[in-house]
Amino acid sequence: MHFVRLGPVGQERPAVVAGDTTYDLSGLTADVDGAFLASGGVAAARSAVEAGELPELGDADTMRLGAPIARPGAILCIGMNYAEHAAESGSAPPEVPILFLKTPGTVAGPHDPVTIPPGSERTDWEVELGVVIGKRALYLDSPSRSLEHVAGFVVGNDVSERQYQLVDSGGQWSKGKCAPGFSPLGPWLVPAGEVDHGNLRLRSWVNGEPRQDSTTADMIFGVEHLVWHLSRYLALEPGDVILTGTPQGVALSGKYPYLRPGDVVELEIEGLGRQRQEFVAAEVA
Amino acid sequence: MHFVRLGPVGQERPAVVAGDTTYDLSGLTADVDGAFLASGGVAAARSAVEAGELPELGDADTMRLGAPIARPGAILCIGMNYAEHAAESGSAPPEVPILFLKTPGTVAGPHDPVTIPPGSERTDWEVELGVVIGKRALYLDSPSRSLEHVAGFVVGNDVSERQYQLVDSGGQWSKGKCAPGFSPLGPWLVPAGEVDHGNLRLRSWVNGEPRQDSTTADMIFGVEHLVWHLSRYLALEPGDVILTGTPQGVALSGKYPYLRPGDVVELEIEGLGRQRQEFVAAEVA
Repeated sequence: MHFVRLGPVGQERPAVVAGDTTYDLSGLTADVDGAFLASGGVAAARSAVEAGELPELGDADTMRLGAPIARPGAILCIGMNYAEHAAESGSAPPEVPILFLKTPGTVAGPHDPVTIPPGSERTDWEVELGVVIGKRALYLDSPSRSLEHVAGFVVGNDVSERQYQLVDSGGQWSKGKCAPGFSPLGPWLVPAGEVDHGNLRLRSWVNGEPRQDSTTADMIFGVEHLVWHLSRYLALEPGDVILTGTPQGVALSGKYPYLRPGDVVELEIEGLGRQRQEFVAAEVA
Repeated sequence: MHFVRLGPVGQERPAVVAGDTTYDLSGLTADVDGAFLASGGVAAARSAVEAGELPELGDADTMRLGAPIARPGAILCIGMNYAEHAAESGSAPPEVPILFLKTPGTVAGPHDPVTIPPGSERTDWEVELGVVIGKRALYLDSPSRSLEHVAGFVVGNDVSERQYQLVDSGGQWSKGKCAPGFSPLGPWLVPAGEVDHGNLRLRSWVNGEPRQDSTTADMIFGVEHLVWHLSRYLALEPGDVILTGTPQGVALSGKYPYLRPGDVVELEIEGLGRQRQEFVAAEVA
């Protein structure tokens, strides 16, 4: 079972997919958001599916996929969380998780086109495991309690503009992370119990050619550690998304060209579905 | 005329102050938020005040002050934007604005107590001019159009934990900026036309002793430049807040002790009102 949000931008309707069938969740909740997740929404949806209480959405296949979680309060990103990616970026592996933020307005659907910012020559992809918070987490005692605060997992593309991130920035990365559409999420929000989040293959392709191919088992700091660690510094709130870092195989490495208009990026994480974005030129008046 | 939000946390009621009188804005808008500002709310409130259409709020003086803008989509912070503060922090003045983000969940009222995080020994104050966006800004042609996108100004305290920001961080500052309550805003949201934002004295005190005392005229990058510059990298949305950087006189300089439980921080910007926060110890179970 997994959640999706279907419909035009800003008018997405909550739905749940079980087997081959998509069910309308509108009768149960207005949206798949922090309030829904914090109030036991995952269990309520499962019960409703099993009881046959939800109407089918017959036209789901023809509808746009939005991000599977409504606009988060925060997008918390972990930098350099795979040793080989740190190396290709010219950095040593970090001794503690490195946190930076994206603005919540960057969230987009998994198949929405992504605009390359005007003048950008260094737009890059980053496939990442996204953690969706289901219960507030602050000052957790140990990583062993972390999963109680996780509602589920999503695929994320932490799209990045390296000139903005590393050169125009004075060293703070957010400037290269927040262009419109730079955080495609989805297609699915998969409840935490349904995947082995510590051992998922994650891959990306550009125009069908392989780029990244790794596993979440290679993360320097795993999901439980990250949730606990971040909770020592800030309050994780229901609906917040943690992007847990990207493995080696991005353009920043110098091995591959940066994205150009017309390029198609695909990203997949085992059990969490597949994204596909066409990168397009900015229309500037 | 200026806006306030009055009432318990999460139940603030919108109000407008004209002269010595506070008027209830609930009949005009559910909140002082991005949608209100983007739809001409400032002008509508002014007209309603002048037409005598708003009921007085007789008990305003006894009510808690919330942040004067509802939870923003983004809090965009500019680092090292006063030359002498850059120097006291051990840095050269930046050549471009340095952007980092705070999570929107950090926003608090101007007089709410601020919790010093458990174990923190380096919690610091930063008085800053806050810019509230009133109209979406993306890829502006020049700074000359920036003010069309600004609804007004607020006092902000960019509370910071320096160990988290500079040592535990791997160099990305957000980890020291996002503890609960670390972004007191207000007391007032003052419409853009009512203050000379480029020439405002801003000051802070700890336990009544002066700390910061500068003027927004000393900012390296002024408001118009910042709005234009940021719009080259991301979409500024109505209700977003830009904290424009702090002048010299913070504890990080080594001249003053960091905050301890019981300390009282006050911050004032000419024309924008005064904040007062007691810093308190964390209650850890």
